[in-house]
Amino acid sequence: MPLLCPDALSSVAYGTQAILVVLASAGTLALWYSLPISAMIVLLLTVLVISYRQVITAYPGGGGAYVVGRETLGPVASLVAGASLLIDYTLNIAVSAAAGVAAVIAALPALLAWRVELCVLVVVLMTAVNLRGTRESSLTFGPPTYLFIAMVLIMIAVAFFQGKMFAHPAHALLPAPVVPGLALFVVLRAFSSGSTALTGIEAISNGVPLFKPDSVIRARTTMVVLGLLLGVMFLGTSLAAFSYGIVPNAQSTVLQQLAAAIFGQGVFFYLLAFVTMGILMVSANTSFAGFPQLASLMARDGWMPRMFASRGDRLVYQNGILVIGLAAALLLLIFQGSVIRLIPLFAIGVYIGFTITQVGLIKKNLSERSGKWLVMVAMAGGALLTATVVVVALATKFLEGAWIVALILPLMVIAFLRIQRHYKAMSQELRLPDSEVRPSGKAVVAVVPFSGISRISQSSLSYALSISANVVAVNVSFTDQAEAAIRDAWQAWAPDPSIRLVVLRSPYRSVTGPVLAYIDRLQEEFGEGHVLVLIPEFVVGKWWQYLLHNQIGLLLQANLVFRKDIVVAMVPFRLSGR
Amino acid sequence: MPLLCPDALSSVAYGTQAILVVLASAGTLALWYSLPISAMIVLLLTVLVISYRQVITAYPGGGGAYVVGRETLGPVASLVAGASLLIDYTLNIAVSAAAGVAAVIAALPALLAWRVELCVLVVVLMTAVNLRGTRESSLTFGPPTYLFIAMVLIMIAVAFFQGKMFAHPAHALLPAPVVPGLALFVVLRAFSSGSTALTGIEAISNGVPLFKPDSVIRARTTMVVLGLLLGVMFLGTSLAAFSYGIVPNAQSTVLQQLAAAIFGQGVFFYLLAFVTMGILMVSANTSFAGFPQLASLMARDGWMPRMFASRGDRLVYQNGILVIGLAAALLLLIFQGSVIRLIPLFAIGVYIGFTITQVGLIKKNLSERSGKWLVMVAMAGGALLTATVVVVALATKFLEGAWIVALILPLMVIAFLRIQRHYKAMSQELRLPDSEVRPSGKAVVAVVPFSGISRISQSSLSYALSISANVVAVNVSFTDQAEAAIRDAWQAWAPDPSIRLVVLRSPYRSVTGPVLAYIDRLQEEFGEGHVLVLIPEFVVGKWWQYLLHNQIGLLLQANLVFRKDIVVAMVPFRLSGR
Repeated sequence: MPLLCPDALSSVAYGTQAILVVLASAGTLALWYSLPISAMIVLLLTVLVISYRQVITAYPGGGGAYVVGRETLGPVASLVAGASLLIDYTLNIAVSAAAGVAAVIAALPALLAWRVELCVLVVVLMTAVNLRGTRESSLTFGPPTYLFIAMVLIMIAVAFFQGKMFAHPAHALLPAPVVPGLALFVVLRAFSSGSTALTGIEAISNGVPLFKPDSVIRARTTMVVLGLLLGVMFLGTSLAAFSYGIVPNAQSTVLQQLAAAIFGQGVFFYLLAFVTMGILMVSANTSFAGFPQLASLMARDGWMPRMFASRGDRLVYQNGILVIGLAAALLLLIFQGSVIRLIPLFAIGVYIGFTITQVGLIKKNLSERSGKWLVMVAMAGGALLTATVVVVALATKFLEGAWIVALILPLMVIAFLRIQRHYKAMSQELRLPDSEVRPSGKAVVAVVPFSGISRISQSSLSYALSISANVVAVNVSFTDQAEAAIRDAWQAWAPDPSIRLVVLRSPYRSVTGPVLAYIDRLQEEFGEGHVLVLIPEFVVGKWWQYLLHNQIGLLLQANLVFRKDIVVAMVPFRLSGR
Repeated sequence: MPLLCPDALSSVAYGTQAILVVLASAGTLALWYSLPISAMIVLLLTVLVISYRQVITAYPGGGGAYVVGRETLGPVASLVAGASLLIDYTLNIAVSAAAGVAAVIAALPALLAWRVELCVLVVVLMTAVNLRGTRESSLTFGPPTYLFIAMVLIMIAVAFFQGKMFAHPAHALLPAPVVPGLALFVVLRAFSSGSTALTGIEAISNGVPLFKPDSVIRARTTMVVLGLLLGVMFLGTSLAAFSYGIVPNAQSTVLQQLAAAIFGQGVFFYLLAFVTMGILMVSANTSFAGFPQLASLMARDGWMPRMFASRGDRLVYQNGILVIGLAAALLLLIFQGSVIRLIPLFAIGVYIGFTITQVGLIKKNLSERSGKWLVMVAMAGGALLTATVVVVALATKFLEGAWIVALILPLMVIAFLRIQRHYKAMSQELRLPDSEVRPSGKAVVAVVPFSGISRISQSSLSYALSISANVVAVNVSFTDQAEAAIRDAWQAWAPDPSIRLVVLRSPYRSVTGPVLAYIDRLQEEFGEGHVLVLIPEFVVGKWWQYLLHNQIGLLLQANLVFRKDIVVAMVPFRLSGR
């Protein structure tokens, strides 16, 4: 429970508020519409619970929208689902961090000036923790989850027993008030904002194998319990917010205003702020796990760069964690850590995923001639509903930021397709024509640039002799005297006939130029063989001493790397480091 | 002339202003003191011209304060001189850029809001031009220099003939007015600020060899001409500024105010602004040449990192140019492109250099028993005067920024000493114990990580066979099936007995961890021999394709580089790049 449910339940922290903010723009009378909108969202929730119970049965190994899409609707649908989910994992982290910080600020208003910095700090810390590798355990994630559920339910219950909840039946049950200037457009926009409250309910079906034993049965039961809990908490919060006349403002959150109205600014009020922050962090952490997992799955299918497929030394998918952490931090900076400004981007991806999952499952059931017809109808209705949410969200919030998702999603799909095309072309090119082509050696000439006769040239020339019987020691001299000196010293020192001395003259004190030109000439002369350049490299004890060495070597390496048929190797030589 | 004089002459653009700004803080009556201060500075100039004529004779090969100090006063004095000059080259670029931009802003006030940006832009452009390599020619540097000289002289002449110059003899020639609240401290500070007008007159003695033929005689003559010109222009500007009642302000420069007062805001006014900018750029360019030259000289003496000693492919000292460009840009950012705020740091270094040069020359003449006694006395007086300027500048402007120079200068000297100590210890360590220690080969085992049998593994294993008869092909498998598959494929493919197949098992999908651990084991087993790791590397056609490859190879390389006795080489494999 504490592993897969916080993602959905934490949405209660901003779902109701998302509705109220939109309605409040049309005046306080319009807030009444939060009640039918909330009812509509609970209906949506019911259909989704039915649908996802089917997904659990059909994919007991755990299957997100990407897997379901891949196995039922083909690659493009699966890529759309994959891109949607990757976008929404990122947004979930950004929205959770922003909403968590907003809850804390509601309790400690002095922090308001640091909102953006706090949001980014939260993301940076979570990235660091995930890079180190966490053991996901009920012990750390349990307390905030259970406390949050308990506190929200208590709040709703107290509101109920205080009698205020239905004190004004005229308001709550009578026909809709006529609000001048309230367009259907605004109501639809409020609905699509509120639909963010259901993000995360797909988490259970992704993680079925975690329920052991009897995973399918227990996951299906958990799905119902989660649906009931989320429904009660969300509807209760909406009802209570309306009954207590909560109007959203920039300093506080709806949940904190409600706590203040019911219990006053006491222990409950402050505790709720931090518990909300806690469950939202747990929810964000789910995305920190989900994004790299999905990315590694897609990388193994060849749609994403391979670097997402492999784990690092700490056994985490470090590249995926880094990318999502960076992206979420960037989003928070661009949108100034504001939940209200992030919401228009959010949920679109999740609902695309819901739709693809349901359509895919209907197709699967049809082709297998399985499934009860009533459930099938519910799922078809669900798919229609979630597709409608996508269209409504895009239409009503396009200019507020939904256009960003509408732009990036197809770009991502195109990128996935191009990446796979590249990998396929490459594997074609890498295929050996026939198994008779086996590894076989060629002649190698080892080139060792050196500045004078010393321990380091002795060490690197020894290395060269270990590798090849054809070694060229290359020296760059600026003057006649220098050339004569090096030739004399060489004569006296290195009689090994397999080492040739080549002295290059450089009147302008450039070292890399002449060496590079010489290597070009050598490569031409040497024809079929390999040219191996061994660059002596100092290893020193203190960081600043690196500023004193290796510059020419690094310059040579930078110029030679990626050259056709040339291999460069740095031969380390350790100094005592004084 | 146009090569070595602009540095000194361009100082006229800010010298008088530097005096007036300080005095104006004590009220307009105090501006009278600019006259005796200017006279004092001209006296200083006379002494310096005499001294530097001696320097030219003594060092016909061209010798700056560093060389003179090194050859007469020993290493520490030469390092102090070197550090001072490096600091002042940097400050000359910053002050010239700031003063040039100030002149343009005086003509085009709309640019005021972009002062800092313009200053940094000027420095970035000059850095880029110098990195590309310029041919220093009289043709490009001549026009602004001659135009500047002509325009300033015309301005002074017109002021003289307009009759205003000595219209108030009561002001100009009568005893000093009593200015309440004007402390000696302020007068001294104004003097030390004005002494920046003489920066750059040492340039001729540094560049004696450029005067061909009869370089010494012609350089000595040029020195006198330069002294006369600078004296007339500086004193004339100061006198005219006082006569026309110019009070410095933040929007304009003294030179532009003077031009406006004498000629009105016409062609002369606008032309002067751009000519001033021009000569200041020429002056800054002198430092862009001087800093890298001095740094390379000091690097060859072992005091500075060797990377300053060598020229790059464009035959310029790129590292020196980059460092001074970066430092000047940083100074302009810190001091907001303000000449007034930069002046307190400036000149201290130059006057330390003047002092060391003169003291060194006196010592040389004494030990050689050469030199006329009258010249010797003048030089001793000069050394005393310039030393006094250093003390006065440090004392009167310590808190305004002189402390920065007082802090950095000794730190630089300490760094020079430590760098030389390191290079000396290193060369000691690199010395071969006796010439009998010659290069000799050892056994090498070549390790090739590979992921499957393909063209790229064929290519890198072939390379390994070219280098060693002892090759290990290392594969990392995540599952039993993968391991069995690779073993079967290997059996069918590579019968060369010199290649051993090693399959490492990694249940957690980490690739680098097992490979690194294996290399450690191998190194222990292999004992005395070398371990060479050959990492296959893709070379692709488009930049974004690099994101799709080589990640694990780069990670391996990063982990192996600098390991004792392990050499890593990337073996490039070119893909067609689709």
